[in-house]
Amino acid sequence: MRQAELQALDIPHVSLEARTAAKRRLDEQARPQGSLGILEDLAITAAGIYHDATPPLPKIRAVVMCGDHGVAEESVSMFPQVVTRNISKAFLQGGTAFNLFSQHVGADTEVVDCGVIGDLPPSPLLVQRKIRSGTHNIAKGPAMTVEEAMQALSIGIERAQIAHEQGFRIVALGEIGNSNTTAAAALLSGLTGISPVMTVGKGTGVPVWQKLHKINVVNRAITLNSPKPDDPIDCLSKLGGFEIGAMAGTIIGAASRSLCVVIDGFIATVSALLATRINPRVREYTVFGHLSAETGHGLVLQCLEATPILDLGLRLGEGTGAILAASLVALSCSLLSGMASFENLHTPNPYEHCD
Amino acid sequence: MRQAELQALDIPHVSLEARTAAKRRLDEQARPQGSLGILEDLAITAAGIYHDATPPLPKIRAVVMCGDHGVAEESVSMFPQVVTRNISKAFLQGGTAFNLFSQHVGADTEVVDCGVIGDLPPSPLLVQRKIRSGTHNIAKGPAMTVEEAMQALSIGIERAQIAHEQGFRIVALGEIGNSNTTAAAALLSGLTGISPVMTVGKGTGVPVWQKLHKINVVNRAITLNSPKPDDPIDCLSKLGGFEIGAMAGTIIGAASRSLCVVIDGFIATVSALLATRINPRVREYTVFGHLSAETGHGLVLQCLEATPILDLGLRLGEGTGAILAASLVALSCSLLSGMASFENLHTPNPYEHCD
Repeated sequence: MRQAELQALDIPHVSLEARTAAKRRLDEQARPQGSLGILEDLAITAAGIYHDATPPLPKIRAVVMCGDHGVAEESVSMFPQVVTRNISKAFLQGGTAFNLFSQHVGADTEVVDCGVIGDLPPSPLLVQRKIRSGTHNIAKGPAMTVEEAMQALSIGIERAQIAHEQGFRIVALGEIGNSNTTAAAALLSGLTGISPVMTVGKGTGVPVWQKLHKINVVNRAITLNSPKPDDPIDCLSKLGGFEIGAMAGTIIGAASRSLCVVIDGFIATVSALLATRINPRVREYTVFGHLSAETGHGLVLQCLEATPILDLGLRLGEGTGAILAASLVALSCSLLSGMASFENLHTPNPYEHCD
Repeated sequence: MRQAELQALDIPHVSLEARTAAKRRLDEQARPQGSLGILEDLAITAAGIYHDATPPLPKIRAVVMCGDHGVAEESVSMFPQVVTRNISKAFLQGGTAFNLFSQHVGADTEVVDCGVIGDLPPSPLLVQRKIRSGTHNIAKGPAMTVEEAMQALSIGIERAQIAHEQGFRIVALGEIGNSNTTAAAALLSGLTGISPVMTVGKGTGVPVWQKLHKINVVNRAITLNSPKPDDPIDCLSKLGGFEIGAMAGTIIGAASRSLCVVIDGFIATVSALLATRINPRVREYTVFGHLSAETGHGLVLQCLEATPILDLGLRLGEGTGAILAASLVALSCSLLSGMASFENLHTPNPYEHCD
């Protein structure tokens, strides 16, 4: 895929008519208006995305994008790089939070190798799309070529299109990648000009001295690579990573197929900012699953003027927050199609004058 | 049931050994320690309640207690009293938020008529335990006799015991009752001495002038009835209502059978305070599902030193917040029994030194 093709990808607006019809429907239900809080907002969002005020219960596909980062050699994580491969393998075997959360909400799962170092065992869950075994170290040069950045985006666009063809209507989007809070912080700083002091956090829990070191590494990556804030593909190629590009591609692909895409924590939300910079219309299709405990997450949510659905103190990634929130989006759809109005109950609506 | 029998009801402490074993198990899992936030707290709570560090997936029974309030004649609600009966009927027919939320999380449902005015149609979901057609008006005298208060508590104890016998291990607890934010505010003030100015809220959305009127009504109820703050049964009988007593009974019954009970919004939380005053040990078995938008809810949560799980802007009652949170308690149990440790993955735990 070329950059021009990507930007020309047709993303329609969501349906204002369906949103209005959904709002009216909610207001006619046998309960005080507005009494279902955020679930009503989600129902209206879903109706707009699906162009349908009574959408059928949407099936959920949980996608976890996996990739390694050359910047790991700067010791920005407490943990060895092999964690990416080990956890990716565990996704395929079952028994991770990604698997259990998906099973709990009835979501189908998919594990995409975008650039893990080392081999992953064959599995029906695995989608093998390895671009390269890890990005280059951003503290020493660009993470990837522009061609590789386009390839990462294409992986995601393809996965969203396939999810659509397979009948899924919600994509819950997460990731695994050792050192990827560093890459995401760099990308956030690159895209917005916000200082790394604000975008770098503790990741999986580094001590304060190591966080200060992470800030230095990100500062170096930005100075060295000079990403162009108004060129999102340039920022992605210079600051990485493969799984971040693939998530941005999934968001773009989901929007182009009128799927709702539910975003996980800090890294996935940075990928949503990236996707929004490539095509602002994707914002209409994105829902933000939860507020992560990672420092920069509140900041990137602010950049997107987004309010996350859940706040459960999660800071794992793997799509955990997105998967739980996706289940609430599905529930909100069943409120639209399955809930009785006072008319159905053959009784006048006593709540109709309620604020 | 007599008051002495009630207070003698044996409620064991939860198991500290199982809590400790669950914490250790969580810490050994293939992820950074503490990275599943509130879900880890819930897992530890559940392990203590079930005396089992790897509890099987608990089945959920959602119970909605229904009752009318004599204080409705003081015009403390925007809506006619018949709403209680209409919504209770709707629970039996399906298509309410109570039904849809329960279905979404796979919870079994039960609708208990504790004192609805008028008849409810026969239904396999209905448990008919009507004490009387609505309480008396608390602005004119006591809501009920002490015998009726004991009867209300007994209904709940029975429902918890039956849930236990039927194999349910989580009870999600909600209510419907026109004007019951007034009764709950009165009971909260009666039990704590906190001024009605603080405990009375907007309920289903009354305007400010009507909220001020509600405060006057509650003040009158307290002055007239002189509830004894150190006698919870006295407070219940004087300030009501039947469904509030039945919820308190369910909490006591659940604790006596080592069930986890998940509490809904303001009214259910006041019933939890009542239950805790009858037997403080029940607190170890209660989980608070969500933060309601009703004013007094934060206050009663503070009285119980409780942190609610979800904050979705719900203000409906019907057990909606409790049902969603109950599903998270169930998920937390599957984290204990279904999640891989690094040992399972045959790989050293790189996260073991993580804070």
